[in-house]
Amino acid sequence: SRELFVLTYGALVAQLCKDYEKDEDVNTCLDRMGYGIGVRLIDDFLAHSAVKKCRSYSETADMIAQVAFKMYLGVTPSVSCNSAAGNEFSLILDKNPLVDFVEELPAERASLCYCNLLCGVIRGALEMVHLAAEVTFLQDRLKGDAVTEIGITFLRKAEDRKHKRN
Amino acid sequence: SRELFVLTYGALVAQLCKDYEKDEDVNTCLDRMGYGIGVRLIDDFLAHSAVKKCRSYSETADMIAQVAFKMYLGVTPSVSCNSAAGNEFSLILDKNPLVDFVEELPAERASLCYCNLLCGVIRGALEMVHLAAEVTFLQDRLKGDAVTEIGITFLRKAEDRKHKRN
Repeated sequence: SRELFVLTYGALVAQLCKDYEKDEDVNTCLDRMGYGIGVRLIDDFLAHSAVKKCRSYSETADMIAQVAFKMYLGVTPSVSCNSAAGNEFSLILDKNPLVDFVEELPAERASLCYCNLLCGVIRGALEMVHLAAEVTFLQDRLKGDAVTEIGITFLRKAEDRKHKRN
Repeated sequence: SRELFVLTYGALVAQLCKDYEKDEDVNTCLDRMGYGIGVRLIDDFLAHSAVKKCRSYSETADMIAQVAFKMYLGVTPSVSCNSAAGNEFSLILDKNPLVDFVEELPAERASLCYCNLLCGVIRGALEMVHLAAEVTFLQDRLKGDAVTEIGITFLRKAEDRKHKRN
């Protein structure tokens, strides 16, 4: 049952809203916390999912959506590729369990990325398998969008850059 | 999978430790947050557990251990009754999943009740079914005890008190 987690997450966001006046600071803090969680969660994910090494960004994005989201949040976002270069993806959530108990953002918190922890988790976990990525919310049902959309942009690998320089 | 929850809870406790210098204040805050969660979680519990009304404190304690803990934390504490009056119980956890990623409390946080949120959750949920209770940690493996023990003392019902006065 996920409800205890969802409500505990709500308590965490509420506490950060007490701590920080600016939404941007709350968002940054959630992302940073998520990063620390992702860095640790990846071991658990690899141990329990028995997935094989991904051979492309596309496979990696599918793995996050179909295995990781399913495992930790009980939902499976759909995945779309957003760039010809094949390094930008969207995870699209029709239903976001983390906001089950949230009706809407208060007017004074209009810029809050309530679920920003998830972006940090993905970023941290990817980094531990040597994939640098930017992860941000592109749409959010809490802000009136039709769906919730998390954008993942895989950055060129450090090794690739090194090879190029050589 | 519980790990995302457990790590998120850790981030919450860490944030409160930043916010409050005194362990007692962190403990109070966790208990208060837990209370708010319990007040909301009880509806989910009653909807999903399909349990019947408990007829005694003993049944209630068993229900918390065998149904609620199992549902939300995936573990089943053992229950013991600690008073001849039949209103004091202990939930004894050999394994506490909430501390899976915690090795030990830092020396400067020796009085921290790391899992105090759980006490608040139980207290809040019980209050919504018209049972007043005090819920506290009696032993904690994080503090070197052999087991983790949560004490629940059911308080005389308000109605009982009213009848007595009349």
